[in-house]
Amino acid sequence: MTPFRYSALLTDFYELTMLAGYFEKGMHEDEAVFDLFFRKNPFKGSYAVFAGLETALRYLEELRFTDEDIAYLDALGKFSADFLDYLRDFRFRCKVIAPPEGTLIFNHEPLLTVEGKLAEAQLVETALLNIVNYQTLIATKAARIQGAAGDGVVLEFGLRRAHGPDGGLSAARGAFIGGVRSTSNVWAGQVLGIEVKGTHAHSWVMAFADELSSFRAYADVFPDSAVLLVDTYDTLRSGVPNAITVAQELRDKGHELLGIRLDSGDLAYLSKQARHMLDEAGFPEVKIVASNELDEYVIDSIRKEGGRIDIYGVGTNLVTAAGEGGGHLGGVYKLVRHAGRPKLKVTSDVAKATLPDRKRLIRVVEPDGTFHQDVMCCENESLKPGDMVFDPTNPAHRKKIPEGVQCEDLRQVWMDDGKIKKELPALDACADHCAAQLKRMPNGCLRLYNPHIYKVSISQGLNALRSRLMEKYLED
Amino acid sequence: MTPFRYSALLTDFYELTMLAGYFEKGMHEDEAVFDLFFRKNPFKGSYAVFAGLETALRYLEELRFTDEDIAYLDALGKFSADFLDYLRDFRFRCKVIAPPEGTLIFNHEPLLTVEGKLAEAQLVETALLNIVNYQTLIATKAARIQGAAGDGVVLEFGLRRAHGPDGGLSAARGAFIGGVRSTSNVWAGQVLGIEVKGTHAHSWVMAFADELSSFRAYADVFPDSAVLLVDTYDTLRSGVPNAITVAQELRDKGHELLGIRLDSGDLAYLSKQARHMLDEAGFPEVKIVASNELDEYVIDSIRKEGGRIDIYGVGTNLVTAAGEGGGHLGGVYKLVRHAGRPKLKVTSDVAKATLPDRKRLIRVVEPDGTFHQDVMCCENESLKPGDMVFDPTNPAHRKKIPEGVQCEDLRQVWMDDGKIKKELPALDACADHCAAQLKRMPNGCLRLYNPHIYKVSISQGLNALRSRLMEKYLED
Repeated sequence: MTPFRYSALLTDFYELTMLAGYFEKGMHEDEAVFDLFFRKNPFKGSYAVFAGLETALRYLEELRFTDEDIAYLDALGKFSADFLDYLRDFRFRCKVIAPPEGTLIFNHEPLLTVEGKLAEAQLVETALLNIVNYQTLIATKAARIQGAAGDGVVLEFGLRRAHGPDGGLSAARGAFIGGVRSTSNVWAGQVLGIEVKGTHAHSWVMAFADELSSFRAYADVFPDSAVLLVDTYDTLRSGVPNAITVAQELRDKGHELLGIRLDSGDLAYLSKQARHMLDEAGFPEVKIVASNELDEYVIDSIRKEGGRIDIYGVGTNLVTAAGEGGGHLGGVYKLVRHAGRPKLKVTSDVAKATLPDRKRLIRVVEPDGTFHQDVMCCENESLKPGDMVFDPTNPAHRKKIPEGVQCEDLRQVWMDDGKIKKELPALDACADHCAAQLKRMPNGCLRLYNPHIYKVSISQGLNALRSRLMEKYLED
Repeated sequence: MTPFRYSALLTDFYELTMLAGYFEKGMHEDEAVFDLFFRKNPFKGSYAVFAGLETALRYLEELRFTDEDIAYLDALGKFSADFLDYLRDFRFRCKVIAPPEGTLIFNHEPLLTVEGKLAEAQLVETALLNIVNYQTLIATKAARIQGAAGDGVVLEFGLRRAHGPDGGLSAARGAFIGGVRSTSNVWAGQVLGIEVKGTHAHSWVMAFADELSSFRAYADVFPDSAVLLVDTYDTLRSGVPNAITVAQELRDKGHELLGIRLDSGDLAYLSKQARHMLDEAGFPEVKIVASNELDEYVIDSIRKEGGRIDIYGVGTNLVTAAGEGGGHLGGVYKLVRHAGRPKLKVTSDVAKATLPDRKRLIRVVEPDGTFHQDVMCCENESLKPGDMVFDPTNPAHRKKIPEGVQCEDLRQVWMDDGKIKKELPALDACADHCAAQLKRMPNGCLRLYNPHIYKVSISQGLNALRSRLMEKYLED
């Protein structure tokens, strides 16, 4: 499913200088555990949608330095022959723990944990962040946009504004997991099996003597799947009437026009007028597609004004994750255990201190299935109703886990000894999982403006471990 | 130079349905001319830096539908066997006209023009936009950041936050052209020949018993290229003093510490303090590197406060083109001539009307070499001092080209009949070209806040052609 081989050199140079250092100091086989997490939910929202796991696992499984890679590194003149020999035989043999793709996840939570030898777990930092940050960001944006569209269909249209060719492919994958299940990107259709959609541009209309001829020509070639772009000249005075003419001509030949597309102007107003005109002319089944700088906020306001749009084409704002708190996901990858000892990145600000050691990520679920909160605890700690849990950024805030809830582990071991050890869910299943999770979020958490913040806590054991480590560092 | 083969399916589906339509209607070999341009300069700035041409030309030259591609399209059940046969033999045989990479370009100007058969010129729309939009966006951001850094060196650090793996590679390429000539991305180093940089992360420090041991270990392995990250515990009380200890130990062995890196806190203040401590200790040559959410505005304010930073590591904000007016470049690709007739996308708003037909793009240069303005004119029109030129968005604004200036053509034919017909400049030459152009911009145009807007005009001939076409359409 990776469209091209991810180079082993898809990494920051400092990963390699650190590896060389660990190797020369005999530390490269030390035991290490790294957590990948982010500190702020994107888009000023209350959640993120985990995505990128399969892409990451395939990269890890295939990770090799080719002869060309070694020759390139050798020519840099910084690395010893012994170290280059080590890289030549390098294989990633760690364990990888994560939730399934499509799982809702939150700030401070370990999305992905890598356990194994220090050098192997360190090297893959950059590529894992690159893959998981972007796909998770886009899956989250897609969930927000699809949420705003309600029962409307959303298409991903963004390839031309994506950040490079693979930006477009990763975007289509992330968007699918978040709920946007079709794309204009034919390569994504081929590689990922996503349904592709699209009909024609303004240039098609301009290549004919007039709009009506262009519509007739298109409908003639694609009589059962024509969506006519009606805004080249004048949407309501020319585009929609010409589309209705062609719809009638198609019907006379035993076909039905599939839809019209609006691409400029006041989409709420134009869609209501167009719907009325189509209905009056006897075409209530013709769909109205709209595009032009759409995002979750625009779609929400169009729907609130009674716009009659069936299908939203969203491009730039989806694939570039535009909007406040968007543009990137600030995932980081931090050492939480080394050579048998839990590790903490110390800082005077407890909100920025990392959460040490191997952890479990627990979802506390109410009897009706609604998510109540998430709790991180130590690996061997059990968690049950009545236990005290703590705000990770302000441990003075504490609360008991209520009675009657279920505690479910969110994460699984996907890779062991560098091999994928269980069948990866199909993309459809990931998207279904995401949709099902969104339905279980507490009231108000999915709101676009000032959402209710979903609670993420740490257990008594993890809080105590962190306090102990912080005191120890501050004493030194 | 393309790190992987760009699939012919790296396109929006509507390009293929339009191609099928043109093919079935016998129009696919009609003569056509398309312009790629954008309507707004990015980042609320006064210019953009053209980049992506070589990547685009390599894609165009190698464009083929493989047997797998044809099989995939066939399975969609929308295309005739004749059309699929046509695609099987499809080659891109058009002419491509553009300025050299690194040229400063402005809104409304045709960055890239494709002339040839309608189907060939149409198919490549999506991929050309994808390539040119992103690389141009990043080259522009890089020029802004390097401009803010003055004589300081800027490193591109953004791979982990880039939009997918190739987002990182394209970013490194665009950034280089814009003036950021080194990267942390080792793959970009290998594929593009860009210098790679990097030393160690916080995890290195945390993997040792204490900070001093970690610094000693790193300096021992890389005695001539160590840059020590000094903010893991306490920058001024622990990090810098420990770095000075190691610098002295290195000197005793005949080596010199290369630098220290600050990655948090008040970078202006910390850099001044660290500079003072290093100088006092006898290490005035040790460089200070800084990173952490930098962009052109932060760098500008650090320098205004007298910060003593030699090298700026810029990641997220560079590769995601963050900031107002950033995130994406809204390039479009419009039909300007078809079957022997100039074409115009009509709209009641003259500011949004396209500029029809084949054009020349002229830079008017003052006697001292300063750029005075750009003018677009018809292909066979000559332009000289004294000629009247018009604001493209408001033709009532007109002005004469002053006496004494030179008029220079900005664009060249790079590809003819689908073959690259001239040697492409090396990446270094593109970056030098950009740097030289930036020095020739009029006063105030490079300002970060409310820059002076560089003038872009259309000639008398082009204005007359557009007016004539608009009247004709409005009459119909």
